[in-house]
Formats: sequence, C-alpha cells, structure tokens
Amino acid sequence: MIQKPRGTEDLIDLKVREYFALEMIIRNVVDSFNYNEIKTPIFESLELFKKGVGEETDIVSKEMFTFADRKNRELTLRPEGTAPTVRAILENKMYINENLPLKLFYFGSMFRYERPQAGRNRQFNQFGIEVFGPKTPEIDSEIICLSSTILNTIGIEEYTIHLNYLVNGEQRKQYISDLKKYLKPKSLCDDCKKRIQVNPLRVLDCKIDANKFDDVIDMKDYLNQSDKDYFQTLIDNLNNIGIKPIIDKKLVRGLDYYTGFVYEVKDKKGSTLLGGGRYDELVKQLGNVDLPASGFAIGMERLLIALEEEKIYISVPNSLDAYIIALSEKAKQFSNILLLMLRKAGLKVDFDFMNRSMKSAFKQSEKLNSKNIIIIGDNELKENNVIIKNQLTKTEKKVAFDKIVDALVGE
Amino acid sequence: MIQKPRGTEDLIDLKVREYFALEMIIRNVVDSFNYNEIKTPIFESLELFKKGVGEETDIVSKEMFTFADRKNRELTLRPEGTAPTVRAILENKMYINENLPLKLFYFGSMFRYERPQAGRNRQFNQFGIEVFGPKTPEIDSEIICLSSTILNTIGIEEYTIHLNYLVNGEQRKQYISDLKKYLKPKSLCDDCKKRIQVNPLRVLDCKIDANKFDDVIDMKDYLNQSDKDYFQTLIDNLNNIGIKPIIDKKLVRGLDYYTGFVYEVKDKKGSTLLGGGRYDELVKQLGNVDLPASGFAIGMERLLIALEEEKIYISVPNSLDAYIIALSEKAKQFSNILLLMLRKAGLKVDFDFMNRSMKSAFKQSEKLNSKNIIIIGDNELKENNVIIKNQLTKTEKKVAFDKIVDALVGE
Repeated sequence: MIQKPRGTEDLIDLKVREYFALEMIIRNVVDSFNYNEIKTPIFESLELFKKGVGEETDIVSKEMFTFADRKNRELTLRPEGTAPTVRAILENKMYINENLPLKLFYFGSMFRYERPQAGRNRQFNQFGIEVFGPKTPEIDSEIICLSSTILNTIGIEEYTIHLNYLVNGEQRKQYISDLKKYLKPKSLCDDCKKRIQVNPLRVLDCKIDANKFDDVIDMKDYLNQSDKDYFQTLIDNLNNIGIKPIIDKKLVRGLDYYTGFVYEVKDKKGSTLLGGGRYDELVKQLGNVDLPASGFAIGMERLLIALEEEKIYISVPNSLDAYIIALSEKAKQFSNILLLMLRKAGLKVDFDFMNRSMKSAFKQSEKLNSKNIIIIGDNELKENNVIIKNQLTKTEKKVAFDKIVDALVGE
Repeated sequence: MIQKPRGTEDLIDLKVREYFALEMIIRNVVDSFNYNEIKTPIFESLELFKKGVGEETDIVSKEMFTFADRKNRELTLRPEGTAPTVRAILENKMYINENLPLKLFYFGSMFRYERPQAGRNRQFNQFGIEVFGPKTPEIDSEIICLSSTILNTIGIEEYTIHLNYLVNGEQRKQYISDLKKYLKPKSLCDDCKKRIQVNPLRVLDCKIDANKFDDVIDMKDYLNQSDKDYFQTLIDNLNNIGIKPIIDKKLVRGLDYYTGFVYEVKDKKGSTLLGGGRYDELVKQLGNVDLPASGFAIGMERLLIALEEEKIYISVPNSLDAYIIALSEKAKQFSNILLLMLRKAGLKVDFDFMNRSMKSAFKQSEKLNSKNIIIIGDNELKENNVIIKNQLTKTEKKVAFDKIVDALVGE
C-alpha cells in the first residue's frame, strides 16, 4: 500500500479539530492586536533562502527540499516564513510610508529535511508575525506581549520568557573576537569546532555543548549607550505589563539575520515553544529598502503537543442537532427535502445514508452525539408528521412537518 | 530583486481577507452538513498519483512538480486532493464500518505545472469533499446540494448544473467501441487523435474540439437497468429539492477514476465553477478495500474571481475600536498598559508606533477606520484620564482610566 512520505502527517479527527480551534484562537488574538494576514507561496526560488536565511545555516546548508522546474529554475519548499514575507512586501511594494507599521501574520506549512522526531516533522505548520517600519521598544514589547497573550488565551500558564539583545556593528566584532578567546580552551563537539570559524555566535546555540557556557562573556557589556537604553526601555515596558523576562546572555537564536532583541518562550520543562527578535538588515539585504523589522514564529504542532501535555482541549466536541432515519423509499425522498430545510435553518443534521437496521442506526446517532432522532415512515408521511426522539430527555413526540424546525430549535 | 516563482501568487490586503471569509462561509455550510476536516501532506509519493489519477492524464503526464529527496524517493507536490484523501483513509484505517459514511472535507494548496493564466496558477487552492461508504442516490444528491448551497450562501445565483452518468463494465466497452466509430470521420486536433487510442472518452472533454460533438451518441442508452434507475432517482431527488440539472451527454470530466454520476456547475458564461462525481473503484485500486465513494472540488481562486465579477464582497471591512496617540515618553509607557487592557477586553486597538506628527497620526487613524482616537499626554497622566475623540459623532470627552473600556464598549 502506498504510504505518506516520511516526516509528514495526516491530520484527522480530534487532531484536525484541535488544529483548527488553535488557529481560530490565534486569529482572534492577532485581530485584536490589528495584524493583517499574508499568504505567500509554498515554494520560492532557492536564492531567496540562501540570501535571506544564510548559506551557512543548518537550514539552508542541510535541510531544504530544493528541485528544478522544467525551465531549470531552482525552487525550494519554504523552510521558514520570514524571508518569503520580506520578498512579498518588497515585490508588492507594501512598504510605502503611509502603510507603516506593516503588521502582518501568516499561517503556513514549512519544510525541513530533518530526522523526524516527536513534534519535528519534515512538513510542519507555523504561525508567525512580522512587523515592518518601527524600531522602537514599544513595538518589540507588543510582539512579546502578543506571544504571551496567545499562550495565556489557550490556557498555557507555566512558561518563561528568555530575552537577550544582540550586539551590532564594531562592538559585535569586538565581542566575537573575545568570544573566540573564551571558547578556545573549551572542548567542543565537531560541529562547534567548525562553527567557531564560520559563525562563533551559533556555538552558544549548540544542543550538545550548551551547558558548558554558563560563564560566557556577556553581550550586554558590549552594547553602546543607545542600545543599552533601548534594551532597558524594552525590559521596563515588559515589566509594566506584568511580563518578567529572564535576561539570558546565552540566547542567540539559530538564524543569522537577528540584529537587536531576541527572545524565546520556554515551557516548564525548558523546551522552546516559540521565538523571535529584531532583524533590521534583512529587508535592505534582499531589496535595498531600509526598513527595520521584528517578529516571532510558533510551531503549531509544538503548541498542540504542549496543549496535550497540559490536557487542555480547545475544540468543541462534535454533535448533531438531529439524525434522520427513513423507513421507506418514499421517506428517503422526503428526508432529502427535510435535510435541506433544517440545514438552511442553521441546524447541523445528518441522515442514515448507509441504510442501517433500526438498531444500528440508533447506535450511529449516539456515536454522532445527536441531540434528536427524527424517524420518518410511510405512516408519518400520510399524517404529514415525523417522530422526534429527544435523546437527552428520552422522550418522543409527533411533530407536524411545518413545526419541525421550531421543535428542534426550541429545545 | 528576487521575485516569486512563476505561476504563484501572494495573497495580501483585500484578497487575503476575501479568501478567509470565503473559507469561513464554506466551513459553516459543510459543518451543517456534518462533514469533518482532513489535512494531508503537501507532497506525496509520485506513485500515488500515477496509480490514483492515471498515468495517461494530462495532470500526471505533463503537469506535476516531481522531485527526489535525499534518499532518492520520488515525491510530487499534490496536483489534486482525492488520491491523497484515499491514501489517508486507507493508511489510517478510517474505513471501518461504524465510521461510515466517512464525510470528509479539505482545504489545501494544489500544484500543476501549466501555462499561468487568469484563475489558473501553478499553485492554487482547492476546497473539496469526499464521501466514502454509501453508494446511493441520496448521498449523491446531498453532494450536489452541498455544492449549490455553498454557491447560494456566498451569493452566486446564476449557474447551471450539468449532469451525466458514466457507463461501466461491459456496456462501457460497447459504448467506447461505438464512440470510436462516431469519432473516426471527424477532423480532430492532434491531442485528440492520440486520445482516441488511449482514452477516447476524454476527446469529449477537449477544449478545442468540444463544439463538434453535439450529435454524439448518448451514454444513457448504454446504461443497464439498475444504473438507469439509480440515475433517475438521483434526478428525482434533485428535482425534489428544487435543483434542475441539465443532462449533458458530453460531460465526462478530465480524470480517469469516475464510475457513476459526474457533474459540473457552470457560471452564466458557461465556464466551470466546480465539478465532481462518483468513483467507486479508486479505493480498491489503491488499497484493496471495497469502498464506494463520491465527491467534488472547487478552485478557491476560481470562486474568488466569480465573486469579483458579481461585485460581491464577503469580507468585513477592517476597522479599529480605538487608535492610541501618546504625546510623551511617559504616555508611551502607559499606552502599553492601556493597549493590553483594551485588547484583553476584546477590543481591537492599535497605537501610533511610528511616532508620527499629531496631524499625520490622525490621518493614520482614519486610514485604519478607527471609531475612536485616544490621546494621552502628560496632563492626562497627571489627572488619571485620557481624551477620547469619537470619530463618528466628532465629539470628544475626558475619561478616567478605569472607565475607558466602558466608554468604548458603550458606544
């Protein structure tokens, strides 16, 4: 039998209902924050991710699905949502001054060729937001606040917010040179030995060596005064709205494009739920437009696992207003009309399409959580009525054709 | 500048709002019909489509995006949603008797390498439903009824439903032999000359030669009695619920897997809005399980174009409950708190993150359709109040901090 590709998943039954419920909750929150949706294509040119994510990153160097189309253009299934969003705002010239701030959100499938493991598939879904235009502590605290509001709204209460501020410009060079000196005597994993040369910042991100850097030099000591003030105002803003971030000098994030604050939200076990930060150079790099930006992304599957662990169920259980059983061919024809009538009245109704026995049809109505069963036979057709059994009160009554909607809605 | 790949689209602004509104309307309708969502992966093994759609179809032979992963497995961006759905119900063993009928719906991006034209991109979005289990005229009329209910609900009123019933088994062989005789003397396009050999049914589908077959032999004359009765009951059922299909002997649909009724809904210009039919052999073919099935699919972009042509706008225009302008650094910090408070109260509010001039911030609030403007300066902070300007009544008043939500909700 043909199976789904490795690292992909079918969402069915409760899983797909939870997914949709989660999406709707998030949509509600981001709407109150006045963010607007953007949908970009599933694939982009390979070049976009090379330039926008960085050729040296694990994502671009190891994890992408890239293929050639019939004209030999190299296309890549998007591994993340930020570079495509930047490409889209440039191509659609959305960045004119009167549109700023551009506050955008997206939901979408992303693709990374990784070893599949729990919560980490080759196709996964992300929700993300990106803000273009402002470079202020106010928008950065809004972004962090938005992510914690989402967690609070779905009922995840125990989490910590880890925050750092990346040093830029000349000071970054100094920091990196000092970091190399600090790392030199350490015994590191093979990947990290390479990373020291290419991008030593990312050594701090290493899952294997992470616990060796508790005494690492602090970026904060390298910030210039205006960055220090900015960072402090951001922390003050967060404190004002009841958010107490943990300042974490080891937090650098896996992507190359961050230039200011970076943050991650971790669950009570210390595993990352979401992350983001400021990336003021990316738009210029991709399109020669000077446009500061910040944002974050959440893995939807990661969030669904968190909900499951907390035993939080956010979807409404399936149920029916009525289930119709027809006892004759004529009654079947009438059922067709009745179904449409009830559905037009906004009721959720279904019919025994499998021609089950009476007993088995009753069982089916219970499986479907139907509040009522409507029974139609030739006798009922003659008398212009139907039998409605109320499954809650376990009572039944005859109801005239033109009173069926009232009888169901009234209950 | 890096551009989106040919044949793809960014959905932004009004377009993405209309798309979401359309999805929500459709979700509402299918929910009242008691269909459940399924999400399958963006790519599947190439083999699935070869077997499930047919190697000889245009889709599989010419139009697929296929690539190899790092283990040299051939993967294909799905060109349609039916074969993946069948694969998923087989792999997840969803077809056990007590689950029947399986009434499923999906929304998703599909991919076909075609020459891009209006409403026909290489990546496009489809909504579809599939029903597994029943083989009855009642479920087939429900499916047709569901599609017309969707069109009616979004406000598309002028359309026609074209219906045919494909002949099967021995009679199909007879029909095809007679069809070949009928087609022989015709002068046909080059593609059709090949189609006569491989799959002559699909000649009737040809966009170039279509108008040459008005006098084609009628499949109906080849149906056996039980198929004739089935087809007649389906037509009767449809008539009963006010649907008058046009019986169309030329309608065969582009895919190979149909085995019973097939239908298309066309707009007033005769262009196809959606289509579907019965495919009783596909599940057996892919998984050795005997499970009758029928369904339909709509192109979301096609439907959005229809809405635009009819000048029907289904999305709610963007607006804000309040737009906050802060006149000092202290006021900015307070705004952060106020924003969170108002958003927690379910209001949609935003803030002048761009530090605009007063005049330009007012303009911005108009652009965002804000019902109110909240102004906070140092004076207001001292007095523990804010100024609320009601943009509708053009009045303004001072409101104490603890009365702001009431003042906005009360209006």
